[in-house]
Amino acid sequence: MNVSDLGEFGLIDRLAAAVGATRPESPSTGSGQGLIVGIGDDAAAWRFGDAVILATTDTLVEGVHFPPGLAPWADLGWKALAVNVSDIAAMGGTPQFALITLALPPETPLEDVDELYAGLRECSAEYGVAVVGGDVVRAPQAVISVAVLGHAELDSDGQPQLLRRDAARAGYAIAVTGSLGDSAAGLRRLKDGASADDPLVRAHLRPKPPLAAGQQAAHLGVPCAIDVSDGLLQDLGHICEPCGLGAVVRAEALPLSQELRRAFPAEAISLACTGGEDYQLVFIAPQETMRLLRASAQVPLTVIGEMDEHPEQRPRLIDESGKEMRLPAGRQGVPGAGWDHLRPDGRPSGRT
Amino acid sequence: MNVSDLGEFGLIDRLAAAVGATRPESPSTGSGQGLIVGIGDDAAAWRFGDAVILATTDTLVEGVHFPPGLAPWADLGWKALAVNVSDIAAMGGTPQFALITLALPPETPLEDVDELYAGLRECSAEYGVAVVGGDVVRAPQAVISVAVLGHAELDSDGQPQLLRRDAARAGYAIAVTGSLGDSAAGLRRLKDGASADDPLVRAHLRPKPPLAAGQQAAHLGVPCAIDVSDGLLQDLGHICEPCGLGAVVRAEALPLSQELRRAFPAEAISLACTGGEDYQLVFIAPQETMRLLRASAQVPLTVIGEMDEHPEQRPRLIDESGKEMRLPAGRQGVPGAGWDHLRPDGRPSGRT
Repeated sequence: MNVSDLGEFGLIDRLAAAVGATRPESPSTGSGQGLIVGIGDDAAAWRFGDAVILATTDTLVEGVHFPPGLAPWADLGWKALAVNVSDIAAMGGTPQFALITLALPPETPLEDVDELYAGLRECSAEYGVAVVGGDVVRAPQAVISVAVLGHAELDSDGQPQLLRRDAARAGYAIAVTGSLGDSAAGLRRLKDGASADDPLVRAHLRPKPPLAAGQQAAHLGVPCAIDVSDGLLQDLGHICEPCGLGAVVRAEALPLSQELRRAFPAEAISLACTGGEDYQLVFIAPQETMRLLRASAQVPLTVIGEMDEHPEQRPRLIDESGKEMRLPAGRQGVPGAGWDHLRPDGRPSGRT
Repeated sequence: MNVSDLGEFGLIDRLAAAVGATRPESPSTGSGQGLIVGIGDDAAAWRFGDAVILATTDTLVEGVHFPPGLAPWADLGWKALAVNVSDIAAMGGTPQFALITLALPPETPLEDVDELYAGLRECSAEYGVAVVGGDVVRAPQAVISVAVLGHAELDSDGQPQLLRRDAARAGYAIAVTGSLGDSAAGLRRLKDGASADDPLVRAHLRPKPPLAAGQQAAHLGVPCAIDVSDGLLQDLGHICEPCGLGAVVRAEALPLSQELRRAFPAEAISLACTGGEDYQLVFIAPQETMRLLRASAQVPLTVIGEMDEHPEQRPRLIDESGKEMRLPAGRQGVPGAGWDHLRPDGRPSGRT
């Protein structure tokens, strides 16, 4: 048996079990420095005195997460940091500091690295993140690994204001920021030769996590969120599983951009549901809380469905008649059908 | 010009300049959440309320940091975490949490991963570190990237008790924990077929950073330290440079193990000075402070030299007559002459 049989999520579960790290200290018995959220959420969170610290890490591998020569290096720099900012946003927190690990072939031209750094700088300026350390190592292909540290707020009772994956309840509304599917559509257009001016290509190369919306949601008491990295339905599966719930997503409610509808009219729904790397936020909250968030959020926020007690405990996409829709299978090597980085065809293991 | 021309340390400097991240806020003007130590030390440090948070990251790449098939996977797991614990130890702090990024070829046998996890668990138990998150991605060769978060103490005046690279003064004593050169010697023996029972091989595969000694040093007011990762003289160069000082190391004072003297009698001094990966701590402090540390440390601590005002601002190895010694060049691909991961032959860029 090898790691591709187990898949990315199986390996993460196995790591969690092996290191025995899935049991955060109970807040009532903790020393005040205890773990609040461990493996299995967008970021880890722990209490340290009056502070709630957040930490997350994400990696881009040449030839896996980006095709060599296709994405400009500046955009890789932006994206390597932005995907980590997205994880902090999905916890409702504020990113502060980044550690950057660059693995590079020795023959990498210096101007590529300078461009990469320039993109990193743009993203760090956009989100107020200071790069405070890192590591540079040699490798056969480029790997950009970023860890971002941040913090979350405490409410008036001294409890952490965190958006957690395991905090959904049946009947809670599901809403998503911005539009979905643009990034996967942009990757297709990039491969077909479109330039970085194309709005879809731009959505793929320069994702902009709605950080303020995540903070606002945490402030209003939204309990649950995840960012759209692997694809909406797969990511919603990461909510269903720890909560023991199902989720209904109404296809006609999905927020689709004009550009996406125009470029891929027949596949827009499919790309919106299974195209990864949108780095939008999915919020899950009681209906009344969601109304408050929609009234105050500075970004478009669309209610697309709700959590339920369905015995299959997975997300279901339904059409206007309430019938479950089946999506066409994704193309090999395209993050367009939910994404498992360790399976040969990138197809998820069926957990969601 | 490509990255191998600039080298690892040149690239890190360039990153620091590009992202403008080398200017920690002044403690007096900071908001209480400001950066204390940024790029260029063993770990980053920042103040958050009453807490001082530490963060560091280090990466092992198959074929670069470990030869495929030579080091047992459990030892790689141990070492990937231990080298980060070493960075926290070199700040005088306490490691608490780890994020693990595994990049693996899909065909990696699952038992290898299980062994890796087992080694990680042993190290995390040894040092009280909880694994709280991470990422698993596909890559052509194995890369293990670990970020460790921890904390430092405040003294009675509310100032952080940190061991910094830039805090040496002329006349300060230089002391090192344990013995030097064993790891590089162990790597040679491993390549020659020695087993993991060999004490030198063990020093290479299972480095044990003297964490408590670092904490004790910080508590006693030792201002300056670094861990021995790239080789004693090169690492001392990372003290000399920010301090604008030279350093004298007396060859006859170097702590050499019986095993090293026996196995490599002619090269023991050279391996001790330029063999990397010992993960011992070098402390630099006023003579009186060093006496206090030596009296209370639970590990062997040997004074090997002192900082001085030498115009060349680099470490010099001297013999009993006070004459500077020249060391033979290291072998290609062996971290035995100071180590720069991006140069084709691993030789440093001459900064030290």
